[in-house]
Amino acid sequence: MGTTGASKYLRADAGVKEYLAMAAELTDKRLMEILPGGDAVPHTLAEAMRYLTLAGGKRLRPALALAAAEAVGGGWGEVAEVACAIEMIHTYSLIHDDLPAMDDDAMRRGMPSCHVRFGEATAILAGDALLTLAFETLASMPRKDLAADVVSCVARAAGWAGMVGGQQLDIEAEEMASVSVGDVLKIHSKKTAALIAASVEAGAIACGATERQRAALRRFGEQAGLAFQIADDILDQTSPAETLGKTPGKDKEQNKATYVRAAGLEGAREAAAARCRAAKAELEEFGERAAALRMLTDHLVERTS
Amino acid sequence: MGTTGASKYLRADAGVKEYLAMAAELTDKRLMEILPGGDAVPHTLAEAMRYLTLAGGKRLRPALALAAAEAVGGGWGEVAEVACAIEMIHTYSLIHDDLPAMDDDAMRRGMPSCHVRFGEATAILAGDALLTLAFETLASMPRKDLAADVVSCVARAAGWAGMVGGQQLDIEAEEMASVSVGDVLKIHSKKTAALIAASVEAGAIACGATERQRAALRRFGEQAGLAFQIADDILDQTSPAETLGKTPGKDKEQNKATYVRAAGLEGAREAAAARCRAAKAELEEFGERAAALRMLTDHLVERTS
Repeated sequence: MGTTGASKYLRADAGVKEYLAMAAELTDKRLMEILPGGDAVPHTLAEAMRYLTLAGGKRLRPALALAAAEAVGGGWGEVAEVACAIEMIHTYSLIHDDLPAMDDDAMRRGMPSCHVRFGEATAILAGDALLTLAFETLASMPRKDLAADVVSCVARAAGWAGMVGGQQLDIEAEEMASVSVGDVLKIHSKKTAALIAASVEAGAIACGATERQRAALRRFGEQAGLAFQIADDILDQTSPAETLGKTPGKDKEQNKATYVRAAGLEGAREAAAARCRAAKAELEEFGERAAALRMLTDHLVERTS
Repeated sequence: MGTTGASKYLRADAGVKEYLAMAAELTDKRLMEILPGGDAVPHTLAEAMRYLTLAGGKRLRPALALAAAEAVGGGWGEVAEVACAIEMIHTYSLIHDDLPAMDDDAMRRGMPSCHVRFGEATAILAGDALLTLAFETLASMPRKDLAADVVSCVARAAGWAGMVGGQQLDIEAEEMASVSVGDVLKIHSKKTAALIAASVEAGAIACGATERQRAALRRFGEQAGLAFQIADDILDQTSPAETLGKTPGKDKEQNKATYVRAAGLEGAREAAAARCRAAKAELEEFGERAAALRMLTDHLVERTS
């Protein structure tokens, strides 16, 4: 599965588990500083914001942002705000998606969902506050001259044309009698791949990447994001709750537009592998500096949770 | 009630109604360009985003942003993005506040609330998308070098320490047997005054205002914002639905922490007038260029809807 190779954060023979653990540690430490603390007012809102954000997420997106930074010669110092902001956006989307009016899920990251723990009103507000804090965090990045570009990249990916739009399409697809592979790809591109692509693109922008590097990493992220979501669809069908950390089999039960529903389990496995290859093909120009990105890409489709 | 005086947008004898109408026209025109249009995907989400945003809001916050720009020698060219972004943030907050899990209000701006018209899931997502688009819009402002400061100012005012935090306190206060004037001021400061203060402060930042000017306008906005919300509490008690455009008397029915509840109708009227005077005292150093801001401040407490 490769090693981190040229990463300056780990010894040369470290693998993807070590890389993810390192990125998670950096992210968690920084998020604890960014999120409102124990003496914040209103206290309940601060607690709800911290609850799921600090509940041991896999931090795949921060790891991708860091690996993209490394691919263009940067590091954590440049991308910490991007990594934490995108993780807060990801977390807010989970909180709102779990609401009764949306996917109505009572379990997340192995714990009661935010609205089960704090009530619906506070869960809605905690999501709103995390999204807002994400942009405040981006605006505090060291290179002020690049902040407008980074905010723009992340907002486009998270908004109506990206993640939020994908969630809307996802909900609308529940009413459809059948979904094609094309329908599923459109939803997955917006709902999942857009924010994953923004993790790597914004990570690169924050390090002063060239336009050409940005474009290559965006294309990489779109393919890797699709591979990730197809793998997620497969895991929902094949994993037990204790591994998954959320309610399994919900996709089928809710008539979700999944790749497995459109193409079968074997078709989904082949598609994930193909997207994974397409993603890695975009990394050629980065040479050894993209070692961590390559390793993470393989992990996206080989993971078990 | 004064005239626009030094405003370069209106003839010298124009009043506050003309100033508001002019700001509303500029804002509506720009919002129609910014918001996703008829051919956007997903269509329902785009429609829900436009629904309340373009439903003839009073555009007080855009007018304040423009007047603040004028106070520091700028104009619409510099503050259009700030004005539209803050109006989108204001609209998203109304959409989420009206949800059944929050204030449960079926009527807004004289029409069915967003969730009544489009369903709860789409209303939640439309709010999320408007908030995200607000930051995308701020990042597109002409002075890229000032974007980080503007995003930071608006996000702080809209987030957990400001508007969202105020909404949380507001909900929690419904369970309280009694509220003091101090409790009410804390809620109003966060829930309403913070975003109004950000309208003028971010408007000034976008025009390259000095630190001293920013600070004076922030203090002005905090006082003006409190005056505005106290006036709102009074209107909720004294206005019929057709004038108000939303369900009147809801505050009392829902046991809301209002200034009228804490201090009585007469006490509220006196407090609004006092905050109005305190706000205008902050404008002295801006001389004639703050004519529009002074006129708007009087209007905040004298309005009937």
